[in-house]
Amino acid sequence: MIINDKVKDNSTSAPHVVIIGAGFGGLWAARALADKAVNVTLIDKNNYHTFLALLYQVAAAELEAEQIAYPIRSIFRRQKNIDFILAQVKKINIQKQIIETDGGLIRYDYLIMAAGSVTEAFGIKGVEEHAYFLKTLEQAIALKNHIICCFEAAIHEKNETRRRELLTFVIVGGGATGIEYAGALAELIHGPLIKDYPKISLQDVQIILVEAADNLAAGMPQKVRDYTFKKLSEMGVHVRLNTKVREVTPSRVILHDQNDLLSATVVWTAGVRGDEIAHLSDIKTGRDGRVTVKPTLQAHESSNVYVIGDLAAIRESDRVLPMVAQVAMQSGVAAAKNILRQITGQSPEPFRYNDRGAMITIGRRAAGVSIGNKTFQGFFAWFIWLVIHLFNLIGFRNRVMVLINWAWDYLLYERALRFVFPSCTSSFSPSSYCSRTSDTRSKIIK
Amino acid sequence: MIINDKVKDNSTSAPHVVIIGAGFGGLWAARALADKAVNVTLIDKNNYHTFLALLYQVAAAELEAEQIAYPIRSIFRRQKNIDFILAQVKKINIQKQIIETDGGLIRYDYLIMAAGSVTEAFGIKGVEEHAYFLKTLEQAIALKNHIICCFEAAIHEKNETRRRELLTFVIVGGGATGIEYAGALAELIHGPLIKDYPKISLQDVQIILVEAADNLAAGMPQKVRDYTFKKLSEMGVHVRLNTKVREVTPSRVILHDQNDLLSATVVWTAGVRGDEIAHLSDIKTGRDGRVTVKPTLQAHESSNVYVIGDLAAIRESDRVLPMVAQVAMQSGVAAAKNILRQITGQSPEPFRYNDRGAMITIGRRAAGVSIGNKTFQGFFAWFIWLVIHLFNLIGFRNRVMVLINWAWDYLLYERALRFVFPSCTSSFSPSSYCSRTSDTRSKIIK
Repeated sequence: MIINDKVKDNSTSAPHVVIIGAGFGGLWAARALADKAVNVTLIDKNNYHTFLALLYQVAAAELEAEQIAYPIRSIFRRQKNIDFILAQVKKINIQKQIIETDGGLIRYDYLIMAAGSVTEAFGIKGVEEHAYFLKTLEQAIALKNHIICCFEAAIHEKNETRRRELLTFVIVGGGATGIEYAGALAELIHGPLIKDYPKISLQDVQIILVEAADNLAAGMPQKVRDYTFKKLSEMGVHVRLNTKVREVTPSRVILHDQNDLLSATVVWTAGVRGDEIAHLSDIKTGRDGRVTVKPTLQAHESSNVYVIGDLAAIRESDRVLPMVAQVAMQSGVAAAKNILRQITGQSPEPFRYNDRGAMITIGRRAAGVSIGNKTFQGFFAWFIWLVIHLFNLIGFRNRVMVLINWAWDYLLYERALRFVFPSCTSSFSPSSYCSRTSDTRSKIIK
Repeated sequence: MIINDKVKDNSTSAPHVVIIGAGFGGLWAARALADKAVNVTLIDKNNYHTFLALLYQVAAAELEAEQIAYPIRSIFRRQKNIDFILAQVKKINIQKQIIETDGGLIRYDYLIMAAGSVTEAFGIKGVEEHAYFLKTLEQAIALKNHIICCFEAAIHEKNETRRRELLTFVIVGGGATGIEYAGALAELIHGPLIKDYPKISLQDVQIILVEAADNLAAGMPQKVRDYTFKKLSEMGVHVRLNTKVREVTPSRVILHDQNDLLSATVVWTAGVRGDEIAHLSDIKTGRDGRVTVKPTLQAHESSNVYVIGDLAAIRESDRVLPMVAQVAMQSGVAAAKNILRQITGQSPEPFRYNDRGAMITIGRRAAGVSIGNKTFQGFFAWFIWLVIHLFNLIGFRNRVMVLINWAWDYLLYERALRFVFPSCTSSFSPSSYCSRTSDTRSKIIK
């Protein structure tokens, strides 16, 4: 093991805990192991932690990507027993206790799998190829770029059908992400974009939220669900319930009832499944890619492998716990504590989830909060949402920056981040990226 | 012409001025034509203006890319006679007065070419392929990513030579960009990065600034040049004067004296040349790609084509004006005024440059300023630099955000932006990007 001198003394004796994934689950697990008698290695394919709860705001040009990310090394700078490795996991051998990564091999004594979830397309044709997703920063940036390109292309577009496609935005999935993005997108378009593109009339723009079930925000109290529906409608979002998607093409959403929605932008938030990482080991998963764990969060296949967060299907009395940040954080801490128990010869304890409630934000000064038996809607709920999200962001600087951007947006109805933004690869050109959105090559545009 | 209803009334009579490039020159030209009896179309391949003077700070993880960019449409939201088109110019026919773009054709009555400059490799082998540049936001982000990846790779690297390559950073060119980046990089590494990577000793890191001439900061007074040299040396930058580069490889800088510098990072700031746009028309350029214009800034080939900023070689008594923002802004305004004179039947006037001085910043509280016969160094010069740069940033929000980041950096010696950051293309993966930096595939790293 390569470790720095200070830890080396006890490195032969201290067990090595490897955590895969630096999301909420992995980070909280690592924190619970900080300064304990273990050596911890945290692995992630990014060198930053992403505050996924605000990802939709990056895709709506409200926050900068940098503001919801935080460098992992900085988080654990003072914890000498926690090391970080930037790597992609290729294979996990739970018999030999070795992880193969694109950066080399890593041996572990205890493993916490915290790789989270990925988008689930349910095998629906065209989703993988043509829809936009909201699970990573890359995807959020790509979606934002695409939205702006649709407006750039629409002002030169003479073909009425193509113009309608460019100005219709379909969001599939009426869960938290779909609702929050629909609201944020409506505010982006109705505010700054309409001012930026005076040639485009608001009547030509359509935002459609499609949900297969008969109501939005499953899991929230009925009062919050009704409020959400009403608020979104007021904001100009067309909510279509009981509507199932059959296929997505570059310019259409084909529905089960044979109706088509013309749209160049389909944002797919209809489902998630466990990350593929379990398939890189011998650990079995359900159809949703999640690992059914023991009550102690251990995998059935190996008592020194723990699975937490979105990747774990944690059964509690009659339900499987939802894939939310609260479950990830709490299960991360529980797994860490159980490993410390195992090391000291005690037996691991079953995980107990402490449900602190749920919240959803629809837009500026509009949110729904459910805590225990109580529900709140409107401004007060939005204020609670704002404070909790600010508080949970990592890093004081990020909090200040986000607060400024929100002040800009909520008070001035302005968003400063409407860039078609450069990528890290030098071959990317915004103008050619946008021109792919519409073929106007031989037209006289001016 | 597609224009909105309000302007349409006078569109048949008002002449159409097209400006190519929304840098300092193009933007200032457009501003001078705002609300005048002309229709203006501004073309750029990005939908944002970049404040290039602070680009090196993006590459040093000090500022976010979004903070030195501003959406062009927002700048001219209230000017009904100014339109923006996001497009790449493919060809310019100065006889027919038509511009061919990837978005369609554009006719003009008057043309202002303000496409700026690009990096000049002087035909030196390997520069285009292996060096990093500092002329665009994409390049700045790619360079920042690469620096962090070098540190990520170095902690696992057992080969001593490869480790030295990864931790040696060579900047070629002792002009303003090279000096400013060397200083900012030294502060990034000596501060936050050394804290983030406790396994890397500062003794193993080298920053080398290579300059072919016998002094840094050509064009500045000797006092400022001496101060710059002294300050950089104090900050741990090895300045090598009279040193010419013969070739750049992925791991070496081969010098004319046959010595090699081992380095995986070569930042090329040794020269710029006029953008290739002049070659897309019949307008002649010099060897440096710049267009030698008449004293009125008109092209010799066509009296309704103006060339300004870095793209123009503007002769003034015995010198050609330098490629700096001040020349670009002033020549932009002058070209706009000359077009308005031509339209009203007056003859264009020769351009006169008002030199307001020059400044260079080396680091935290260290800069050199030259105004007329006076020079200032140190904290006071740095304070002037800070105020002027903040003032020239477009957008109040950007100013606030930049000020916060600077406060973070200058007061807390901390930089929050050390991400290997996602690109817009979904295929980009930071861990695979970084693993290209070092081949550690089959090693046991932990």
